[in-house]
Amino acid sequence: MSKARAIGIDIGGTSLRAALVDSSGHILAREETATLAQAGPQAVVQQIADLVAKIAPDRTGITGAGISSPGPIDTERGLALGVPTLAGWSDIPIASMIQTALNLPVRLENDAIAAAIGEWKFGAGQGLSHLVYVTISTGIGGGVIADGKVLRGRMGMAGHIGHMTIERDGAPCACGNRGCWEAYASGTAFARRISPHFPNPKSAFAAAPSGDPRALQLVTEQADWLGIGIANLLHLFSPQTVILGGGIANGFPLLLPGITHRVQANAMPAFRDVPIVPAALGENAGLIGAAAMVM
Amino acid sequence: MSKARAIGIDIGGTSLRAALVDSSGHILAREETATLAQAGPQAVVQQIADLVAKIAPDRTGITGAGISSPGPIDTERGLALGVPTLAGWSDIPIASMIQTALNLPVRLENDAIAAAIGEWKFGAGQGLSHLVYVTISTGIGGGVIADGKVLRGRMGMAGHIGHMTIERDGAPCACGNRGCWEAYASGTAFARRISPHFPNPKSAFAAAPSGDPRALQLVTEQADWLGIGIANLLHLFSPQTVILGGGIANGFPLLLPGITHRVQANAMPAFRDVPIVPAALGENAGLIGAAAMVM
Repeated sequence: MSKARAIGIDIGGTSLRAALVDSSGHILAREETATLAQAGPQAVVQQIADLVAKIAPDRTGITGAGISSPGPIDTERGLALGVPTLAGWSDIPIASMIQTALNLPVRLENDAIAAAIGEWKFGAGQGLSHLVYVTISTGIGGGVIADGKVLRGRMGMAGHIGHMTIERDGAPCACGNRGCWEAYASGTAFARRISPHFPNPKSAFAAAPSGDPRALQLVTEQADWLGIGIANLLHLFSPQTVILGGGIANGFPLLLPGITHRVQANAMPAFRDVPIVPAALGENAGLIGAAAMVM
Repeated sequence: MSKARAIGIDIGGTSLRAALVDSSGHILAREETATLAQAGPQAVVQQIADLVAKIAPDRTGITGAGISSPGPIDTERGLALGVPTLAGWSDIPIASMIQTALNLPVRLENDAIAAAIGEWKFGAGQGLSHLVYVTISTGIGGGVIADGKVLRGRMGMAGHIGHMTIERDGAPCACGNRGCWEAYASGTAFARRISPHFPNPKSAFAAAPSGDPRALQLVTEQADWLGIGIANLLHLFSPQTVILGGGIANGFPLLLPGITHRVQANAMPAFRDVPIVPAALGENAGLIGAAAMVM
């Protein structure tokens, strides 16, 4: 008996990835290329079609293609609303363009929600009914599973967790506002804080275990900012688990004590025992989650 | 043809209310008494049974009883977990105790979620798929409808929106943490800020329209704190509407300009056009919502 298979596509501002995924979440074939981010939507759609032709020359048994895209996108209507990292992706019916190019059912999803689905179905959140997936990289994104369903909201735009204010009129954020969680706890913010002392987050994480006091202090501070936002997410969504992904996950074991310390201080008692765990699927979470949406 | 009817019960630390509600959300009968908050759970259960006997001497066609309770409660298991305003409500199977006393199917819900259901089914949120209900009174509570479903989360404890940090290590909150939204924007916080100048919020709201500069400044400040949290909720849940209820709703027309100003400044463009509206059902939202849960 042949198992159902689906295509996952992960559109990033830098890399474009496509994978053929089976119903157990295993990647059967995978291709990646540099996104033609400045060439307009039609060029990227053609890149997607070319990748899919490579990973799935035979379409037999393929149920569809799930698309993970950076936001803001309106996933109810399949529209890109003005994606800052992709030129020309403004009020573009990207889902139907890809559907036409591939001649397959297509489902469009915000990238952090797609990754949350991947972790839920096949990663660190398997079997749970309620989870929050947090991706900490250039910015902070999130995807929420609640009551056994993906939380989407109006236009599929729920989970923009990086832009909750945690300091009124605080540090400037890339979104134009001030005091967003992302402005303090993203990989970008961490890299900026460590830059007088370390060339990159990886080197700070490498120096901390040997007791370098500067590295320890910077990692503790980063963990504290992460913990503030995570405690908020516990109160807002009441997950069974918080899953941390993105580039920062490399430092997870070093960050966890500081995160836990802040969460224990900030969360009400009934929320304090919720586990905080690292993502299991790494950079493939979005690809696998996108495919899972059309299985 | 007789319509289905259900009982709604709203347990408060001060008042205990019960209503018989029809399938259009109309209250057919209503009784209220002072809660025996210090007498233990069994006494309150007896009060509930007495009220229900008054409003529904005939049980014909009654589908069940929905219970709105202050938190923290575990609505998955029907347990009160340690309600601060009700003595002895700690690890008590309150749902099954009421079910036994009434001999009716019972469903237990957090009070702010029950009120959100009331506004969704029969109030300011009718016909919507995504909304956030915010109640601003002694504290701040919330209930979320997303994707056409009530958002409950682990133990039914989602929506504790008053305890998101909006200032790291900020003003002390009743929960023991610092910097919670509730510590700045609740009715209690507002009353504290105005207390050197006005005896109560009502008098500040009364003085503002005539141009009293102190009243205007205090109302504007309150609106700003409200707007910070509301902008967060837009990013987190992506509702189609935010509904404001609780005691503060008396000042809604005076607060709305300041709330809107802050939301426009803090929210990303795709979230800025979401209406912020007053609750329609007033203090009956919880009663009606509780009844709606068992219809």
